[in-house]
Amino acid sequence: MTDLPLDRLAAICGPAQVLTGADAAPYGQSWVKSYSAQPGAVVRPGSTQEVAAIMRLAQETRTPIVPMGGNTGVTGATQARDAVILSTERLDRIREIRTQARVAVAEAGVVVATLQEAVAAQGLTFPLMFGARGSARIGGVLSTNAGGANVLRYGNTRALCLGLEAVLPDGRVMDLTSALLKDNSGYDLRQLLIGAEGTLGVITAAVMKLFPTPAAYATAMVAMPSLDGALDLLNRLQSESSGAVEAFEIMPQSYFTRLRETRPGLRAPLGHDHAFTLLIELGATARRDAVAGPDGTVPIVALLEEVLAAALEKDQIADAVVARSDTQRADLWHLREIAAEITLDRAPLVDTDIAVPPDQVGAALARLEARLVAMDAGAYSVTVGHLGDGNLHYTMFPTRDDAALLDALREMVEDVVAEFGGSFSAEHGVGRSKRPSMRRRKDPVALDMMRAIKTAIDPQGVMNPGVLLP
Amino acid sequence: MTDLPLDRLAAICGPAQVLTGADAAPYGQSWVKSYSAQPGAVVRPGSTQEVAAIMRLAQETRTPIVPMGGNTGVTGATQARDAVILSTERLDRIREIRTQARVAVAEAGVVVATLQEAVAAQGLTFPLMFGARGSARIGGVLSTNAGGANVLRYGNTRALCLGLEAVLPDGRVMDLTSALLKDNSGYDLRQLLIGAEGTLGVITAAVMKLFPTPAAYATAMVAMPSLDGALDLLNRLQSESSGAVEAFEIMPQSYFTRLRETRPGLRAPLGHDHAFTLLIELGATARRDAVAGPDGTVPIVALLEEVLAAALEKDQIADAVVARSDTQRADLWHLREIAAEITLDRAPLVDTDIAVPPDQVGAALARLEARLVAMDAGAYSVTVGHLGDGNLHYTMFPTRDDAALLDALREMVEDVVAEFGGSFSAEHGVGRSKRPSMRRRKDPVALDMMRAIKTAIDPQGVMNPGVLLP
Repeated sequence: MTDLPLDRLAAICGPAQVLTGADAAPYGQSWVKSYSAQPGAVVRPGSTQEVAAIMRLAQETRTPIVPMGGNTGVTGATQARDAVILSTERLDRIREIRTQARVAVAEAGVVVATLQEAVAAQGLTFPLMFGARGSARIGGVLSTNAGGANVLRYGNTRALCLGLEAVLPDGRVMDLTSALLKDNSGYDLRQLLIGAEGTLGVITAAVMKLFPTPAAYATAMVAMPSLDGALDLLNRLQSESSGAVEAFEIMPQSYFTRLRETRPGLRAPLGHDHAFTLLIELGATARRDAVAGPDGTVPIVALLEEVLAAALEKDQIADAVVARSDTQRADLWHLREIAAEITLDRAPLVDTDIAVPPDQVGAALARLEARLVAMDAGAYSVTVGHLGDGNLHYTMFPTRDDAALLDALREMVEDVVAEFGGSFSAEHGVGRSKRPSMRRRKDPVALDMMRAIKTAIDPQGVMNPGVLLP
Repeated sequence: MTDLPLDRLAAICGPAQVLTGADAAPYGQSWVKSYSAQPGAVVRPGSTQEVAAIMRLAQETRTPIVPMGGNTGVTGATQARDAVILSTERLDRIREIRTQARVAVAEAGVVVATLQEAVAAQGLTFPLMFGARGSARIGGVLSTNAGGANVLRYGNTRALCLGLEAVLPDGRVMDLTSALLKDNSGYDLRQLLIGAEGTLGVITAAVMKLFPTPAAYATAMVAMPSLDGALDLLNRLQSESSGAVEAFEIMPQSYFTRLRETRPGLRAPLGHDHAFTLLIELGATARRDAVAGPDGTVPIVALLEEVLAAALEKDQIADAVVARSDTQRADLWHLREIAAEITLDRAPLVDTDIAVPPDQVGAALARLEARLVAMDAGAYSVTVGHLGDGNLHYTMFPTRDDAALLDALREMVEDVVAEFGGSFSAEHGVGRSKRPSMRRRKDPVALDMMRAIKTAIDPQGVMNPGVLLP
């Protein structure tokens, strides 16, 4: 650490913006404790030009640079032992909100919720919805290609970004900050940087898409004896609403069992014993769907009720409850949003972030459960997921803290995912945690192509070493 | 040409699949005549493995390979003088249609309209809509990142693709054919290959997204005195319909003037003399929007009429006509779809494919018109475009066939586009035609990054040389 060029970093950003020792320590505290590590230093540039100067210095001195946003990742992608964390927190300006064009230009350090509040004041929404949105920053969600609960309607972060400004490893600024819906001028470097976890450059600003805020929501919790009819129900709701489904979340029985154990006072309106419970939400921006009808109901709610009633009649679903107020809606979402709290608080566990094609979720889940108990008869799982995206967070709790067993369980999940044409990494990114999976499971030709690109763009390997690529 | 490895190509694919001379000539006939050229040879592989063998041979013998789909491009991207055209026409199998998951797996040579017909039989739609869809093939539209008239609703080809299979320049097959809505496992190589115009490898198959077919359309032609209120009208329609706008096309007066000259018998329902005419279409998949209401109208039509009536009352629009039948709808679309026929049939002309942010279209168009007559007082333009995407095909007809003037006009358009933060290349791709623009206008840091990637993936430069990168 003594050879980090601290004086020269201070000359670029000012001495107050270069932190070491105890001042730097909080930046090394990961939400996932296994990735906590004291960084060599933290530097907090205040402008794109300062980021560029830092990268030129890093090139010259071969200093490893780890870009960090809100430090809300769960894969160890910003662990920076002996490296310099480049915190984007001072790049926090919303440069522009253009309501007619429905775009916002935000610097990398803008907190997602801050951007959401700023555009809400204009009647618009920036839709990214996940638990950490009060801390996560734009550059971080882009570098992770973060997902969440409403990817089904709006796409993941990759789909929400029209343009980027980035500093490449050699310190040059690449300006792709156009607000264009069509632009075929060469390779899509924007999409290459999104999801690259800071290994190809530092994103400093982005042009993000905005959407009209739904004027009314229809939210329901639905119980099903099996997942056989779930995708049909989603497809029917999509067709009936012309594509207004915002969320289609799944919580198997294991989730509600866990809920009862850890939150005995919390009311589950359909009880804890259904094989599967769905949380479904539709959003309508249309005025005629937002106003109350003559009988006092909101039409989009009526639509949801009508589809659910038909499904109930055909025994495709076992029970359903539709929220009658904003409070009831919030209560239903609360049951889903405490997933991390009630799942990740005990050890040993093996958590996963997997995706399969949406028509394979039921079969994949059944196979995972069968293999889990075959490997460790007393083990159990807790699952929550985004059924509409085929994205499951399948967490296993084995009976003993045995490193070989934990590894074997992780590989078992990878096996099942591969058998169903899925991915071992859906929305949280690879970071450090999934590098072994990348080595074992990613198409080797694709891995070689990624390595060739990494070497071409960052030949000295100063950008976030030890992350993403095995 | 004598040193092309024709015997070895024949050994891979069979002698009947290697064409030369007159047999190869039709593949060199571009729709845009200036890019017609006799190819060195044409090879027609029948499988991904044959494509791989061809690429290994090309590597060994340094044979330039030009992938070709339906040969419907307009930028000269498949011109192959002294090179081997790799035609994907025999890779024409639809491997799978999964209606529940709403995906199709199609080989690169499947014609877009063929895929559309196959999925229509299942009540689904593959939405890409542009004039050449009866000839264009999946690999070609992916390599071009083709756009069209309903990008507004469904996105361009890039947004419609979930997975790819491709043969890299070294002959290795990269399998990214998953049908996943979330997959964060490394750099997005799929998006890198899409829009790369065959310079980084040969796309051999793709997983494409399908959508429910709209059960009802509402289609209108709308006259406006200026574009000031156009984007507000679009945003209002989007909000009122919860995002059901399929097309929002613009035809300025120049278009209708040209139409009257070239097609005097064709009826323009709002006349030829409005400053701007829009073609607007909404599509609804919802049953309740599709069925006839008690008064005989279809609700989505009523919605469109209601919004247009309000705009008429506020003088935001001058006149409007709503299609009352499928025939009327087809008649309105015909006026838009003959754009290429009535525009590109005289010389000299300078055609363009530009994009600006959607809130800048009116101002950009006004500035283009002012500069055009300032440079050539007798020149005129004909424009048609996708207003919702900010994408204009602005075609200039100067008074004389003077190469310097034509170049100056093209640069003038590039200037104006740059002043409004736009792109000189929106949806047709770069090919050969826009390479000078790439050199002049693309961010130089981005260009260097593209070159570094090209060199890393195709060090010998065998893939479609002379295209895309300046």
